[in-house]
Amino acid sequence: MGEIISVFREEHFNAAHRLNNALWSDSKNKEVFGKCNLPNYHGHNYILIVKVTGEIDENTGYLIDMKILSDIIKEQVLDRFDHKNLNIDVPEFKALNPTAENIAIVVYNLLRPLISELLSLQIRLYETPRNFVEYPAK
Amino acid sequence: MGEIISVFREEHFNAAHRLNNALWSDSKNKEVFGKCNLPNYHGHNYILIVKVTGEIDENTGYLIDMKILSDIIKEQVLDRFDHKNLNIDVPEFKALNPTAENIAIVVYNLLRPLISELLSLQIRLYETPRNFVEYPAK
Amino acid sequence: MGEIISVFREEHFNAAHRLNNALWSDSKNKEVFGKCNLPNYHGHNYILIVKVTGEIDENTGYLIDMKILSDIIKEQVLDRFDHKNLNIDVPEFKALNPTAENIAIVVYNLLRPLISELLSLQIRLYETPRNFVEYPAK
Amino acid sequence: MGEIISVFREEHFNAAHRLNNALWSDSKNKEVFGKCNLPNYHGHNYILIVKVTGEIDENTGYLIDMKILSDIIKEQVLDRFDHKNLNIDVPEFKALNPTAENIAIVVYNLLRPLISELLSLQIRLYETPRNFVEYPAK
Amino acid sequence: MGEIISVFREEHFNAAHRLNNALWSDSKNKEVFGKCNLPNYHGHNYILIVKVTGEIDENTGYLIDMKILSDIIKEQVLDRFDHKNLNIDVPEFKALNPTAENIAIVVYNLLRPLISELLSLQIRLYETPRNFVEYPAK
Amino acid sequence: MGEIISVFREEHFNAAHRLNNALWSDSKNKEVFGKCNLPNYHGHNYILIVKVTGEIDENTGYLIDMKILSDIIKEQVLDRFDHKNLNIDVPEFKALNPTAENIAIVVYNLLRPLISELLSLQIRLYETPRNFVEYPAK
Repeated sequence: MGEIISVFREEHFNAAHRLNNALWSDSKNKEVFGKCNLPNYHGHNYILIVKVTGEIDENTGYLIDMKILSDIIKEQVLDRFDHKNLNIDVPEFKALNPTAENIAIVVYNLLRPLISELLSLQIRLYETPRNFVEYPAK
Repeated sequence: MGEIISVFREEHFNAAHRLNNALWSDSKNKEVFGKCNLPNYHGHNYILIVKVTGEIDENTGYLIDMKILSDIIKEQVLDRFDHKNLNIDVPEFKALNPTAENIAIVVYNLLRPLISELLSLQIRLYETPRNFVEYPAK
Repeated sequence: MGEIISVFREEHFNAAHRLNNALWSDSKNKEVFGKCNLPNYHGHNYILIVKVTGEIDENTGYLIDMKILSDIIKEQVLDRFDHKNLNIDVPEFKALNPTAENIAIVVYNLLRPLISELLSLQIRLYETPRNFVEYPAK
Repeated sequence: MGEIISVFREEHFNAAHRLNNALWSDSKNKEVFGKCNLPNYHGHNYILIVKVTGEIDENTGYLIDMKILSDIIKEQVLDRFDHKNLNIDVPEFKALNPTAENIAIVVYNLLRPLISELLSLQIRLYETPRNFVEYPAK
Repeated sequence: MGEIISVFREEHFNAAHRLNNALWSDSKNKEVFGKCNLPNYHGHNYILIVKVTGEIDENTGYLIDMKILSDIIKEQVLDRFDHKNLNIDVPEFKALNPTAENIAIVVYNLLRPLISELLSLQIRLYETPRNFVEYPAK
Repeated sequence: MGEIISVFREEHFNAAHRLNNALWSDSKNKEVFGKCNLPNYHGHNYILIVKVTGEIDENTGYLIDMKILSDIIKEQVLDRFDHKNLNIDVPEFKALNPTAENIAIVVYNLLRPLISELLSLQIRLYETPRNFVEYPAK
């Protein structure tokens, strides 16, 4: 049996968003979300690091082919999020506030069905160089 | 007389934008600007590096007080661009396409009147880690 | 119930320090701590990354408001450590050697009472780009 | 008893390698490993981060002297891998494909006997800024 | 007439190389190039930053379409250098030592004919994070 | 004759300092230098990038041997500044305020006599990731 190891792949996307809870008043949203609630959107260069953990394939010395992992991320995440407005263009955020936390959970849920059940998955998402999240927590 | 030296100050802002030439057809805009023309905006973590060149003040050993330079950048650029939609919220881009090139020129023109005429000024602006511009060219 | 997630906030401070065990002779200190023991202090740009783990607030999509977390770090750590001499100016290090390990533990103990008991906390501290620590270990 | 903490030391080495399974045909190797299988080798600036976890020594405030840790990494890894061809010059890869995963495991096995049994060890290895691995997985 | 500005595009390639002067004895090569002369090659993650300077196109707000610039770099440099052995696989280095200096000059000469004569060109090449070159010097 | 090119070498040192003009009153110093004037020193991880420009040696393909350049920087700068208190331990700053500007000029003056007169020299010094200087200005 192969050793248990983790591999990480970093990808980038650039998107607009705005934080807002549609069930709240404008003043409540402004109070809670501050400048992140400004009406005309702002944006980020999001950095996404996908971590996959499992047993090495001893024939290849790979846990997973990084090219295949990169292609899955591209199809499921980058093609749907990159150069988009998360609030308007991405159905998952129609009723879900696109905080870094929620984006990480959505990315996890998009990728999970396409990664072997034998492998565990974790998402790290940088919204800015100083603010980032990991899901699921370990 | 003091030595001639350059100092640099890095600041960050996060904004939404979209590239579009209002004088062109939609199809021409789409052809030229690709996904940067998508209608609902996308965004970036812009990194701004302001370079100021001139003679050291021998009493302080400073070219310019970095705190004062940082405050000027904050008032002129960050307070007006950060967490905003450049196309909608920033008057300078009402009739000017907010490419990295044009943003750098607008930043230069906003800062130039507030920096001593004895000092020269150059703007470096990163739109992404792999795409950046400098104005004026040297 | 909300998902369990981790968020991270990076802050910076610049401080002087010197490594020394007051119970040891000068020659023993010099032997063990080398140039870190030099008498007149040296210094670092410390990078602090605070990790908080817990359940997302489904109303906000936040684990914790990053502005509030940043303010707590500023009050408890930056206002007390930044541009200071850790050995002389910070009471916690009067009798505790300001190694990266001990600074991380002191930061943890300063922040822990101000973060909800429902949230777990971990500190990462970079003394240089190549030397860093995490407390508590996971 | 001292607190349990982790320390990390980053080191770099530059090496050539090529991915190939000697038991497979050339066409199978080319299909699986793509341009990483090209016959004349390519190379990387590998970034190695060694994580050591255990109890702080209360006399020093160190988990482990970073100078000693750095020297062990230099002797065991850098002196054997840096500016070398991993496939040709490093005996461990005579019959083992030098993927990032396998390099991390080899590094772990080289360092493990030289670090106290009271301390646990983990290796992070960057093959490129966007592809990296951790062993053992946690 | 448009403003004069510089734009920069960063690309990466991973290659093996070895420094050697075929006109010198082995001992002279070993003396001058040290471990960079080891016979079986080593390698690097080269970072290439291409700077182009000229007049903004006022219709687009671009100096040059970064997608077109990126495609030119890919065709001329990455497709020929990436995952290759510079000494063996790249004809330009058959009789030219592949130092960072010479690689930068070769890159310049490959790109120059494909960039408009109205635009000036400069190459920055990182061989490691701590060693890099610029050609032509300014 | 060889091509004209620039090479850059990055080195690091960690030092304590304090900004103060001995000819001024305490209150004037505090007003001008703020927290950088605090009496017990603070410190930085300084990043030094030395740029050397001149004609390539066609026998080696080097402008200058980076190992030799690194050794010169180590002897002249790192051995004198690293893990030191600039105000107390470095004679050049006995009567000169150790601002980033002045440190860069001192480094230039230390290195200039040891670099061939045929080569030009420029110093870039980062005091923090967001504040840096270049001398001489170009």
